[in-house]
Amino acid sequence: MNPPQTSNRFLFTIGYDGTAFQGWQVQPGRRTVQGEIENVFAAFSGGAHVRPHASGRTDTGVHARGQCAHVDVPIARLDADRWVHALNGALPPDIRIYSARRVPPDFHARFDASRKEYRYFIHRNRILPPELRHYRLREPRRLDLAPMHAACRLLTGTHDFTSFSATRGYDETNTVRTLFELEILEAEDLLTVRAVADGFLYRMVRQLTGALLRVGRGELTLETISDLLAHPRRTAETPSAPPQGLFLWEVHYPEAKLCL
Amino acid sequence: MNPPQTSNRFLFTIGYDGTAFQGWQVQPGRRTVQGEIENVFAAFSGGAHVRPHASGRTDTGVHARGQCAHVDVPIARLDADRWVHALNGALPPDIRIYSARRVPPDFHARFDASRKEYRYFIHRNRILPPELRHYRLREPRRLDLAPMHAACRLLTGTHDFTSFSATRGYDETNTVRTLFELEILEAEDLLTVRAVADGFLYRMVRQLTGALLRVGRGELTLETISDLLAHPRRTAETPSAPPQGLFLWEVHYPEAKLCL
Repeated sequence: MNPPQTSNRFLFTIGYDGTAFQGWQVQPGRRTVQGEIENVFAAFSGGAHVRPHASGRTDTGVHARGQCAHVDVPIARLDADRWVHALNGALPPDIRIYSARRVPPDFHARFDASRKEYRYFIHRNRILPPELRHYRLREPRRLDLAPMHAACRLLTGTHDFTSFSATRGYDETNTVRTLFELEILEAEDLLTVRAVADGFLYRMVRQLTGALLRVGRGELTLETISDLLAHPRRTAETPSAPPQGLFLWEVHYPEAKLCL
Repeated sequence: MNPPQTSNRFLFTIGYDGTAFQGWQVQPGRRTVQGEIENVFAAFSGGAHVRPHASGRTDTGVHARGQCAHVDVPIARLDADRWVHALNGALPPDIRIYSARRVPPDFHARFDASRKEYRYFIHRNRILPPELRHYRLREPRRLDLAPMHAACRLLTGTHDFTSFSATRGYDETNTVRTLFELEILEAEDLLTVRAVADGFLYRMVRQLTGALLRVGRGELTLETISDLLAHPRRTAETPSAPPQGLFLWEVHYPEAKLCL
């Protein structure tokens, strides 16, 4: 038995420019990343309904460098390189498949993810270069970086992050997450907020970024950050930063889950 | 007499995302950068025709980080900061004014430019991230960097660059230019061709880049580069790289020309 033929489930690493999408998830009458990928699989397979299951949804205007999704492909004999080539030939230019690999039939892109990384890009200047306008937040105000770094240290670790999330319309049963890394990288006009966790609540990276910006402007104290962690609550102290600065950067899976 | 009031000529530093423009220059029925700026000045001044004169035209799809243009503004009493603010409030988001300064009434953005810098961005990988698709050339083939660096050294200096230019439909009277710097910068998947000269012939940066890529692929020898410089001629050896990787990066003027 040839191991690559044991499963028709593939894991795809996907990039998209979120500007012209109403997010990842299929919605009737709206252009979504999941919908575009489904359309391409339907065209390849004579109309079969093939659903890609992502590591998580992304909202309208949010981008991805390394979204991951599993798909039970309709043509099992094609190998991973063929799928990359075929999909990129048929997908619109604002979605690209970076890579593919055959995974076990019980692999799940959402439930098996052990770590996700998001990056939020901020342009610290009065004028945002027009070619970056869909991919950066413009922050013209002066930011004090020292308390922002201190806030990152407070937020890192295992906490109930309810204060840094929005309600999705249904209850999250578990609002505790482990933020392995939260850091701010500086390079000339660019500030990058890098967040790595075992998972993220709804709007969590955008609200962490919104809170960090308020700290940098002197509008939110480190004491309040500590209090928001100690007494989880939905609050206006942690507004969402806008979507266009946010990229789902990477999703990590344990090698044991990936191996056939 | 207040020096800032001695002239109504201003020099503007302008950035644009060239994707949705048919280049800089006004053309009937087409969306151009010059045309959009003229529309805004006309709206400010009750319909007066105000023409911005750029350091040079850029073609369809070419971007600018630091295009420069002079304008005889219709409201002389407004200072430079006011003009930046007013124009950015009225211009479409794919054009931004970075800065403005009042210059002498005989200053000319094209004739007084002493040095221009272009940058051409190349993504050396099979897959181009979708959010970069309008701002990079994708080059999936292996490039040998050593002869490309050697070609840069050959091309630097004062030469007749006819072999590295296209005809514009009218004759250039002088095809000799001094290329002060031509270098290739490497950073992970990104190659940047940086070209600094006293001026550029039509399509010169794109043809220099096209020639350098052919050198890197082993399709064009250093001997041929030397021969193209020694015996200037229009040739298929130096194809134009596509427009989307190209940015007009900076225009330099002698301080004496700028001072009131």
